Amino acid sequence: MAGPIFQALPGFRDFTPRECAVRNYLFETWRGVARRFGFVEYESPILEDTGLYLKKSGGELSTQLFRFEDQGGRDVTLRPEVTPSLARIAAQHQRDFPKPLKWFEIGQCFRYEKPQKGRGREFHQFNVDILGEAGPSADAELIALAIETMLSFGFVAGDFVVRVSDRKAWTDYAAANGVPEERVTDFLSIIDKIERDKPEALAQKLAEFSLTPEDVRGFIADPANASAAYLAIQEDLAARGFGDFVELDLSIVRGLAYYTGVVFEVFDSKKSMRAVAGGGRYDTLIATISDGAADMPVTGFAMGDYVIRNLIEETTHAAMQMEVWLQRNAAACDIYVVVADETKRAESLQLVTSLRRAGISADLPLANAKVGKQFQHAEKCGARFALVVGAEYPELKLKVLASRTEESGYASTAIDWLTDRLLQPDGPLLA
Amino acid sequence: MAGPIFQALPGFRDFTPRECAVRNYLFETWRGVARRFGFVEYESPILEDTGLYLKKSGGELSTQLFRFEDQGGRDVTLRPEVTPSLARIAAQHQRDFPKPLKWFEIGQCFRYEKPQKGRGREFHQFNVDILGEAGPSADAELIALAIETMLSFGFVAGDFVVRVSDRKAWTDYAAANGVPEERVTDFLSIIDKIERDKPEALAQKLAEFSLTPEDVRGFIADPANASAAYLAIQEDLAARGFGDFVELDLSIVRGLAYYTGVVFEVFDSKKSMRAVAGGGRYDTLIATISDGAADMPVTGFAMGDYVIRNLIEETTHAAMQMEVWLQRNAAACDIYVVVADETKRAESLQLVTSLRRAGISADLPLANAKVGKQFQHAEKCGARFALVVGAEYPELKLKVLASRTEESGYASTAIDWLTDRLLQPDGPLLA
Repeated sequence: MAGPIFQALPGFRDFTPRECAVRNYLFETWRGVARRFGFVEYESPILEDTGLYLKKSGGELSTQLFRFEDQGGRDVTLRPEVTPSLARIAAQHQRDFPKPLKWFEIGQCFRYEKPQKGRGREFHQFNVDILGEAGPSADAELIALAIETMLSFGFVAGDFVVRVSDRKAWTDYAAANGVPEERVTDFLSIIDKIERDKPEALAQKLAEFSLTPEDVRGFIADPANASAAYLAIQEDLAARGFGDFVELDLSIVRGLAYYTGVVFEVFDSKKSMRAVAGGGRYDTLIATISDGAADMPVTGFAMGDYVIRNLIEETTHAAMQMEVWLQRNAAACDIYVVVADETKRAESLQLVTSLRRAGISADLPLANAKVGKQFQHAEKCGARFALVVGAEYPELKLKVLASRTEESGYASTAIDWLTDRLLQPDGPLLA
Repeated sequence: MAGPIFQALPGFRDFTPRECAVRNYLFETWRGVARRFGFVEYESPILEDTGLYLKKSGGELSTQLFRFEDQGGRDVTLRPEVTPSLARIAAQHQRDFPKPLKWFEIGQCFRYEKPQKGRGREFHQFNVDILGEAGPSADAELIALAIETMLSFGFVAGDFVVRVSDRKAWTDYAAANGVPEERVTDFLSIIDKIERDKPEALAQKLAEFSLTPEDVRGFIADPANASAAYLAIQEDLAARGFGDFVELDLSIVRGLAYYTGVVFEVFDSKKSMRAVAGGGRYDTLIATISDGAADMPVTGFAMGDYVIRNLIEETTHAAMQMEVWLQRNAAACDIYVVVADETKRAESLQLVTSLRRAGISADLPLANAKVGKQFQHAEKCGARFALVVGAEYPELKLKVLASRTEESGYASTAIDWLTDRLLQPDGPLLA
């Protein structure tokens, strides 16, 4: 019996080529949308001083950390999220950039949770933030970016909805109802669990504040409680043609303690009502992280790779769009050079080198093989064309693998011929 | 006095936007070359079972590990290199792919070393491997890819050289000179340090094998000691037009114990003769990692981001090419919409939304600002054009920021107009 074979750790993924191509599809879509919106990319370190995470937010994630002591005795942690690093970097470099900063990061994060379908111990997250602009136009810009991201993945109206709320509406409510200021965070965490708590538990928790479930449900249900910021966001998004994607939902307060104003979540509006992305305003975090050395309002959101990928695969039109992209981008090469006459290997090597130099993805067999096997390999690689180098060299045959049609040309003009041919569809040329 | 501000850990980098753009330039060049050569991308986990690294190679890197116990009591390590993970994944999935596998990964690795100029505790590495092909044509393909990578960064003949050796030549030499088989690894580690050891130390170490520095230097200097594999590689690369980039250098054996045959290093041929990349054949590693459950010959190489970046910056023609790329790709947006009349904000939002939807990178001020300040911001962002929305809307003015020339057009046809305009150079149109 063979010995044990190493496996990936529980909750960690091996991105074999097909999985890596799906990952690249998500990354390129995210990156493309962010760039169209005028955001620039940054990347924070994967490993940070643990204090950065404990300081941030009362440590909601502190039980889920990959935390250890490094060889120099430092208490370090694999990042469970990137926001604290962003706040650290912004505090250090705030004078180096014109405001507002529009920054995005695509980064891997790590949380020690029970691995289950749709959740691992590592995941990739698309983080988008606007720093240095306190007005609701910044929140609207972010929500518009979240909507455009969904549209860019091929989702349409009816597939998703953005639910927007404002913690200010709740802090005003709390003040008006006699909730002491130092207990507002506790009060908000009751609202955060309003859909998940049992009725008796909810009633009991609210009773501490002399409130009832009916009181808070009444507040949530009344559109007159929309904040001024919400109304401005709604008007801004309507001007962009995105008004129908957004609705007021005061039941959303978001779990993390650092949010200070507008908060929102993008929901799958089919089936499971999963949150696909979420974010909001956290105007005091930079001052907290920097102990007051820097201070900037920030609004941001994040989208993870697990939920969006599942949603794409469950939604026919989005899944088809991804499949088309994968077919175009996951092929190992566009042109496979078939060496039909092994005495022409040197010529084949020269040809494939000039094609690659000209920017064409081209490959050839590394060892002598039967022509039939070479054609099989070309198809397995996903190549569009087989370029046959045989005894008649410098004349070459080009076989279109999808249509099984054939053309011919010459080695001396191969670059122009094939560059042009790759821009055309795969069918036979018109007679 | 303000309290302490968190910093990145020693040896870890914050990739602020300019640094991130440089990183992206390296990644896109690496990825582009690998795809042109018919390689497909994979990614292995950043965190692995520590046993994977200790098993591989006698643990050369074992003193430099970021190693810890996770919450489940597992002994885990941040990857110091990706080759062991590749061997693990290949052993698990060997039946799923046609051979040879041509795979590449761009991954971050972690080693606890003393941070210094040109070396951190994390670095990005471009890893390229061919699995399942034992012949020298696979080594030649890899060396050709290494050369094409250098050419793609803008380096030319004279900037770099690939030095190729073969451990087989040395194992044959060791056998012919009575070195016992179990001591060949020790013997090779003497050869590996031949340029760094002091003459007396070298002589003393070789005396244990009844050899002298003159013996081994004589062997290195004699081109007749080139292996058959080296000669085949030289012939293959000459056919590709790359013969002049390669030379025999038997003093290269590479440090890691797992190499079994051809090894090579790409050297900066100016100044410091730094190794920019290196690799070779490791035909037994998959069997070792899988305890014999799988067995495949492999040849691979890796290039880190620190040395190549420094070399680019020190080499005028390569630096200029990168600078041109950065100017084109690191701008926050191409078109900055100047809201010259705040009553036209809704129209401006609609316009910028339609431009972004059409794939154009466009931005606008999030708050009311003076026109002069908006133009300043447009220039700071690196925009090529300012598109002015004013009282005369739907007529629009387009200012070319580099040449200070101006054109006009209409909102209704803005997408076609600007798409076309972005494809043209920045100067004024011919009269």
